[in-house]
Amino acid sequence: MNAKQLFKQSHRLSDRYCITGRKKFHLRDISPADTAGLKSKSDAREALQHGVEQLAELQDRLYAEDRRALLVIFQAMDAAGKDGAIKHVMSGVNPQGCEVHAFKAPNNYELDHDYLWRCHSRVPERGRIGIFNRSYYEEVLAVRVHPELLGNQRLPKDCITKNLWRERFADINAFESYLHRNGVVVLKFFLHVSQKEQKRRFLERLDQPEKNWKFSVSDAKARGFWHDYMDAYEDMIRHTSTKEAPWHVIPANNKWFTRLVVAATIVDTLRSLNPKFPEVSEAKRRELAAVRRTLARG
Amino acid sequence: MNAKQLFKQSHRLSDRYCITGRKKFHLRDISPADTAGLKSKSDAREALQHGVEQLAELQDRLYAEDRRALLVIFQAMDAAGKDGAIKHVMSGVNPQGCEVHAFKAPNNYELDHDYLWRCHSRVPERGRIGIFNRSYYEEVLAVRVHPELLGNQRLPKDCITKNLWRERFADINAFESYLHRNGVVVLKFFLHVSQKEQKRRFLERLDQPEKNWKFSVSDAKARGFWHDYMDAYEDMIRHTSTKEAPWHVIPANNKWFTRLVVAATIVDTLRSLNPKFPEVSEAKRRELAAVRRTLARG
Repeated sequence: MNAKQLFKQSHRLSDRYCITGRKKFHLRDISPADTAGLKSKSDAREALQHGVEQLAELQDRLYAEDRRALLVIFQAMDAAGKDGAIKHVMSGVNPQGCEVHAFKAPNNYELDHDYLWRCHSRVPERGRIGIFNRSYYEEVLAVRVHPELLGNQRLPKDCITKNLWRERFADINAFESYLHRNGVVVLKFFLHVSQKEQKRRFLERLDQPEKNWKFSVSDAKARGFWHDYMDAYEDMIRHTSTKEAPWHVIPANNKWFTRLVVAATIVDTLRSLNPKFPEVSEAKRRELAAVRRTLARG
Repeated sequence: MNAKQLFKQSHRLSDRYCITGRKKFHLRDISPADTAGLKSKSDAREALQHGVEQLAELQDRLYAEDRRALLVIFQAMDAAGKDGAIKHVMSGVNPQGCEVHAFKAPNNYELDHDYLWRCHSRVPERGRIGIFNRSYYEEVLAVRVHPELLGNQRLPKDCITKNLWRERFADINAFESYLHRNGVVVLKFFLHVSQKEQKRRFLERLDQPEKNWKFSVSDAKARGFWHDYMDAYEDMIRHTSTKEAPWHVIPANNKWFTRLVVAATIVDTLRSLNPKFPEVSEAKRRELAAVRRTLARG
């Protein structure tokens, strides 16, 4: 089967990396280099193009229906391809119905509020696709790996309990379940890149002047905590992969494959929602016919 | 005991109306005319003044500590005295550390989002007192009594389940529990006025020209649904009075008493938080002493 055929059955790619049996989940069970048997980069490019077209069409319908919203969350180590995936998968979509929010380290104003505050205010409107490039999940990733960040949050002492991470998982699950009940479908991607491939991409960014801007010294520092981050990701996926909002762990050593799977998963999710253009009632139809007659006569 | 003495033991007034055994709660168990044995309106005025001073002092410390926030929610039927309670209890407080948000029927922009969205974005910053004059609780009150409002929310059909109200109670509890874990203390008041007293106040608003602006025709309409509203309030209190954020059902037939109990309850809550001015470290103290010497010399 070539990539395009495979794409047509997008649930194959979507299901393959969807984490359901979450308690037993191990990151090592999914190889960052996996390509689901696909080999040809050029085939993938054609399939992705096909996927983007479908995505644009489904988003048109989501927008017209104006009842549900789709929130797509991307989490990953640096250079795993978040920005590229967003760019290549979403570029065919009408920006009127799609918005991207990149969450960096919280500023002082944001730290004065609870940690979901800045993200909740950016949850997409009905009919829209919202993309979070990083998210509140950093609260159980970066903040967990670097506990000094917790100090910056200026929480009262009695709020920093032994069960802090469990509590954050529970609160995040409750938040996503609430969103689901209110018509916001949450789709979560972890782009799973290997440490070796990350090194190769960092070197590329350092060696190619036009890629220099993508590199920051702090990226290299996070690398020193690789295994801590992997543990934090694994624990996060185990505790926050829910029926309504499972994690998708996408192999990310091959960018062409990452993008293909991300597109397939979004298309598959939108298809399952089956958004419809609003139906025009019989009365409205008669009204429109009357307007048409008047217009034609004038 | 006079009101001032009673106020000094503010937990007596605070505990009296705090709903704990929530499953068995009946609105009829608390009389709107109750005044806890207090009789004198002028005594109460003096006690309230005393309470407002304490409140102002505690808020100063909350602001300086800058770790926790207090969110005070008011719900009630029209003319129960929400605006008056906010005005008379909070007027002594530094507005730099206190903000009031009145939530009216959601506008089209707000309806395009999940129902907690507009409220969450207004949850107070650390160190502040935030007042919600009505709140997301309208979602299980007005929306429950007037189901046509649910239609306006443009939820997908499959989100309107048989368990909708239970789900909203659960989601609201989860939201408040999350806030509590992040340093936001939630304090909830239901001002419990009788139907007869409401009628008296409505007539007053209609008869006194300077009070006309407070009356809207829709207020009188809600009156027709009095018993439905009482049922909705009772069910709400049963399901959302939690250990972290219990409801306080305040008798509201006597404004002077309502205000006294609201003040006592806020003071009692802030006292239990025991906010402290930040401690100055030994090093910082030495630094300040050095600055002082330089200043004095110059």
